Amino acid sequence: MRYELYYWPGIQGRGEFIRLALEEADADYVDVARGASHETGGLPAMMKLLNGKETATPPFAPPFLKAGRLIVAQTANILLYLGDRHGLAPTSEAGRSWAHQLQLTIADFVKEIHDTHHPVGSGHYYEEQKDEAKRFTAEFLRERLTKYLGYFEHVLTLNPRGEKFLVGARLTYCDLSMFQIIEGLRYAFPEAMRRYERRMPKLVALNERVAKRPRIARYLASPRRIPFNESGIFRHYPELDQAE
Amino acid sequence: MRYELYYWPGIQGRGEFIRLALEEADADYVDVARGASHETGGLPAMMKLLNGKETATPPFAPPFLKAGRLIVAQTANILLYLGDRHGLAPTSEAGRSWAHQLQLTIADFVKEIHDTHHPVGSGHYYEEQKDEAKRFTAEFLRERLTKYLGYFEHVLTLNPRGEKFLVGARLTYCDLSMFQIIEGLRYAFPEAMRRYERRMPKLVALNERVAKRPRIARYLASPRRIPFNESGIFRHYPELDQAE
Repeated sequence: MRYELYYWPGIQGRGEFIRLALEEADADYVDVARGASHETGGLPAMMKLLNGKETATPPFAPPFLKAGRLIVAQTANILLYLGDRHGLAPTSEAGRSWAHQLQLTIADFVKEIHDTHHPVGSGHYYEEQKDEAKRFTAEFLRERLTKYLGYFEHVLTLNPRGEKFLVGARLTYCDLSMFQIIEGLRYAFPEAMRRYERRMPKLVALNERVAKRPRIARYLASPRRIPFNESGIFRHYPELDQAE
Repeated sequence: MRYELYYWPGIQGRGEFIRLALEEADADYVDVARGASHETGGLPAMMKLLNGKETATPPFAPPFLKAGRLIVAQTANILLYLGDRHGLAPTSEAGRSWAHQLQLTIADFVKEIHDTHHPVGSGHYYEEQKDEAKRFTAEFLRERLTKYLGYFEHVLTLNPRGEKFLVGARLTYCDLSMFQIIEGLRYAFPEAMRRYERRMPKLVALNERVAKRPRIARYLASPRRIPFNESGIFRHYPELDQAE
């Protein structure tokens, strides 16, 4: 079965967490909205499903995954689904729940990272909320970034199966997502991360370990990996990186 | 087995979504942090688990549920767990996934509702970000409230098993959470909701149906139900209700 991934074209966004899992699983998938209308269905195919005219279970927002007749939305929910099918999650109930819990905390972190450039709301451009963004980002870098990264570093320390992975003794989708978080933060806040990274050696090692996995390395070098840019979640605005 | 619920005392907050499920399930539970230290363990017991000194799987934040040795955190993840055990979720895989997806969208909605009074960050008081809050809330009431509530009204319309419940033909934890969302929005934004409610007749009927369920009615009339207040997620600030 070929999966259909639906996400906004042109940005990594939340879709990237799904792409990394699909790539590591070597799954057969098509990135629908990045294709031409006459080939994959393109963006119009995504909008039809969002509008709920073709399904009784319309997603609220991308990303979503079509697996046969099933439509699965919400990033962490999609990873829960893929994790079971592709060996990217523990098989025990307690392990599955713990991995999902970490992923939901990553989702909260992603939302706060997004809000550094859009604290007043997504309906306004960054340029219309630069002052608020500076104020939000100052607190984010001082309090939240350190709290979240400190938490995940602590989770690695506590893992009874060793500090190579966040959950258990094998790679899970959480590790792939954590790789993406670190890559994104380095892009968006290079100065702040340069200062902070010596306090998260285990996360830095995890990031390197994921980057070197053959399928991830192949993906990152391919045109399927969209470069970071200032339309996505992780945006590099030097004035925010220096917010205090 | 007696469940242990851990959440900040004094507010409904995200813990309330769990309380409603536990009450509807008539489950045996103790609200740990609301009890005295010498009885339930109180707030110190919660802080110990948060600090990760007693468990290898510490939650990032409350609420979390202790079920025997298992600790489950993240509101939607806790409801996923309780839903299976207490008949508050579909049993089919597609149904379970759809209910969880809706709950994660409710979680996103809750975060945006919280941000109406704290757009710049939780580390500052509302009084320090009133101007930003007005700006955020104006867009929230105009765009986001209507988009989310319109979406859930549409989900009721599309339900092939009828418009009584969000998922399938029986009550799920999603209906309990939607009840709480509507109650909270009516408390926080009475004017805005008065204007909008005629466009969501199915959600209004759902809210009434949940309120009349014997166990929910009993709970709402009990001292276990903490009143809404200006420390929680749903806060009534008249100046925000009138934001334009």
